[in-house]
Amino acid sequence: MTTAKENVHVKLDAKPLRVGIVGFGTVGSGTLRVLQRNQAEIQRRLGRPIIVTDVANRRIEKIEALAEEGIRIHTDPLAVAKHPDVDVVVEVMGGTTVAKEVILAAVAQGKSVVTANKALLALHGATIFDAARKAGVDIGFEASVAGGIPILKVLREGLTANRIEWVAGIINGTSNFILSEMRSKGLDFSTALADAQRLGYAEADPTFDVEGIDAAHKLSILSAMAFGTAIQFEKVHTEGIRQLQSVDIRYAESLGYRVKLLGLTRRTPHGIELRVHPALVPATCLLAQVDGAKNAVMVQGDAVGPTLYVGAGAGSEPTASAVVADLIDVARETQALAQRVTPPLAFGVQTALPVLPISEVETSFYLRFPVTDRSGVVAELTRILAEHHISLSAMLQKPVQEAGGLVDVIMLTHRVKESAVQAALRVIEDLPSVHQPVIRLHVETLEA
Amino acid sequence: MTTAKENVHVKLDAKPLRVGIVGFGTVGSGTLRVLQRNQAEIQRRLGRPIIVTDVANRRIEKIEALAEEGIRIHTDPLAVAKHPDVDVVVEVMGGTTVAKEVILAAVAQGKSVVTANKALLALHGATIFDAARKAGVDIGFEASVAGGIPILKVLREGLTANRIEWVAGIINGTSNFILSEMRSKGLDFSTALADAQRLGYAEADPTFDVEGIDAAHKLSILSAMAFGTAIQFEKVHTEGIRQLQSVDIRYAESLGYRVKLLGLTRRTPHGIELRVHPALVPATCLLAQVDGAKNAVMVQGDAVGPTLYVGAGAGSEPTASAVVADLIDVARETQALAQRVTPPLAFGVQTALPVLPISEVETSFYLRFPVTDRSGVVAELTRILAEHHISLSAMLQKPVQEAGGLVDVIMLTHRVKESAVQAALRVIEDLPSVHQPVIRLHVETLEA
Repeated sequence: MTTAKENVHVKLDAKPLRVGIVGFGTVGSGTLRVLQRNQAEIQRRLGRPIIVTDVANRRIEKIEALAEEGIRIHTDPLAVAKHPDVDVVVEVMGGTTVAKEVILAAVAQGKSVVTANKALLALHGATIFDAARKAGVDIGFEASVAGGIPILKVLREGLTANRIEWVAGIINGTSNFILSEMRSKGLDFSTALADAQRLGYAEADPTFDVEGIDAAHKLSILSAMAFGTAIQFEKVHTEGIRQLQSVDIRYAESLGYRVKLLGLTRRTPHGIELRVHPALVPATCLLAQVDGAKNAVMVQGDAVGPTLYVGAGAGSEPTASAVVADLIDVARETQALAQRVTPPLAFGVQTALPVLPISEVETSFYLRFPVTDRSGVVAELTRILAEHHISLSAMLQKPVQEAGGLVDVIMLTHRVKESAVQAALRVIEDLPSVHQPVIRLHVETLEA
Repeated sequence: MTTAKENVHVKLDAKPLRVGIVGFGTVGSGTLRVLQRNQAEIQRRLGRPIIVTDVANRRIEKIEALAEEGIRIHTDPLAVAKHPDVDVVVEVMGGTTVAKEVILAAVAQGKSVVTANKALLALHGATIFDAARKAGVDIGFEASVAGGIPILKVLREGLTANRIEWVAGIINGTSNFILSEMRSKGLDFSTALADAQRLGYAEADPTFDVEGIDAAHKLSILSAMAFGTAIQFEKVHTEGIRQLQSVDIRYAESLGYRVKLLGLTRRTPHGIELRVHPALVPATCLLAQVDGAKNAVMVQGDAVGPTLYVGAGAGSEPTASAVVADLIDVARETQALAQRVTPPLAFGVQTALPVLPISEVETSFYLRFPVTDRSGVVAELTRILAEHHISLSAMLQKPVQEAGGLVDVIMLTHRVKESAVQAALRVIEDLPSVHQPVIRLHVETLEA
């Protein structure tokens, strides 16, 4: 290939950026691999090499071989954070206690940090960014949201001309894989989850992924960067996909929709929406067609209109791609700056924006009523909905062969507040002809 | 809304960045509009205001009203480039002669420049970037490729960890609009072009758009940034869509493909591919489903895998979105740097990479043979193809009612060099049963 020729003009005596990696799991080992394999290409871009000098891992066996390459190995993560010959610390150990200590220790030593830790930033971002600002160092965290898709850079630098109106995304690959399997193979949730676990797309304890918590972590970061508000993880309305039934995925499909676990944050005159839940998305929307473990984020800006970003949301090298891009940014800034100018959270100053309670959020709804198959039931349902000022855009009646003579009546509503739907459903669920809880899902057309 | 509150913490005494806009057409007026409308939001991001102090336009009537807002107006573009109270010049006048003078004059005065002018950069990029580097100023040109999609930032900063393997995109909105109309409405090229002109998607002289020249301008920039090579516009193999027949779009569809005008650049062991032409793309590929005037760019990196970026590729405010983002980048760098550290073309040093001649490019092909409807013809065709080591992956025979008893035989080949196909077609077109030129289109699966 052309590697040798490509390096001809690069000054090889440029001082290398010395990186310490804390945590040598999927992302940590991917980061080392990418830095080593693409060393020449990275140096062509940056004008100086990036080298890994230190690696820490709780289990030393996993990193013993690195010592032969001249890398210092540690079991104590703080040893890397405090090592005088480390310029930048990559925190990819995960967790929110020791990881926090490591980052704050590195910052206290004047070192910039690159992290993939969304949970930590969602919970303690304010503390960490504040410490970094005071110390005049960088926190790179592109890897924390949507893996290798450079969506944070897009929000921080690419779309700065815009007043961002909303951001909506498929930001949890595990859930998206499960939903794709449920749809394409007609599986129920538990079978699809078991498949995902077998194939390595879901962890043994899948709670964070399937309950929407991981997506909520990421959404709280996206929201802060889109609107210049604080990271407000504790205010994210979060519903997961565990309760989702494959019958609703089929009904949605016959109405022209796909069901996706969306993270959605939107500016409204009364506050910002901040919610993670399964939603029907029109099948014609590109976002709806992003299947498998992929991630996709749509951003609506007032000048640029809708833009879409798609790619691998997790995995060793896609996540390492984001980590290494951040390292290069840090190196470029270190060469140039006493103090970082581009604010890590996109806005220099965070403004408190109120978060709308979910009851005040207005969307269309998918409603499935399992009712006794007798005349007059549909009229009764529509009357109650009308009394709550809920109007319909589509209706579907699917006779299902079940003991008990139950049929599914499916309705799509026009836009209405969640509180109105909840009030109507309380009345409807008391009807003698309604035998099971009514299924209610949001519909998101993702239009301007 | 929250505008007033949002500004509470911003230091209003921060020195504004003073911008001069040269050319007040669609993009120039959009830039002023976006800067004015989003002034508060931009200041929240940047910490200082961006104000337009000067506008130049050949026809003074168009900008006279701006004088009432306190903006200095000019007919001479060089007056803006040289004005002592202008910090940054936005060149959105187009063309490659005066525009070049304006940019070089601004650079000579130590001013950074933001431009949307792909033709100019494709032809004279080397001169301009060289002058800027020597003067220690920035050239922002995000708006020159794919409008509001921040694809250049993605290549320059977001995917820096990767060895980029290929970039493929729909980078001319006019052509994509025409192709979408041809497919969805079954129109022929000239009717779809007339529609596009009537709706403002195509200019009176559509040559640059429909002949692939505009796409080739943009592709030469993308290629330079992906691989760290020079901008090599003159070496782009360029085929437009003027010759495209709607019957081939229909046949492609029945084989599971959509026809798109692709710009594609790929690294191979023998050089880089650099080509613009209509191509069959699998309908299941998200890129194939990007319709209308939208743009979409796919980037394949060795670490991140495939990523996709979709959005408006042209238009007043989408393009202004990119111009203003560049202004904010310039302002952030001006605050921080004596000299720009992130190289504008992504790599600090450009390496000469040979461009593969199109005859050496290997893809699958779509071939349509209009032949006399008699037995033995298909056998003859496949024999000649086999003699040229061309094997088939699909065949379709569509009897068409035409005077002269012609039928269309459609074949998809496995991957083969263009030169082999050309050689086979020379033999085939001499057959007495082949009555018209054979239609040959590239097939691009866009897989890793």
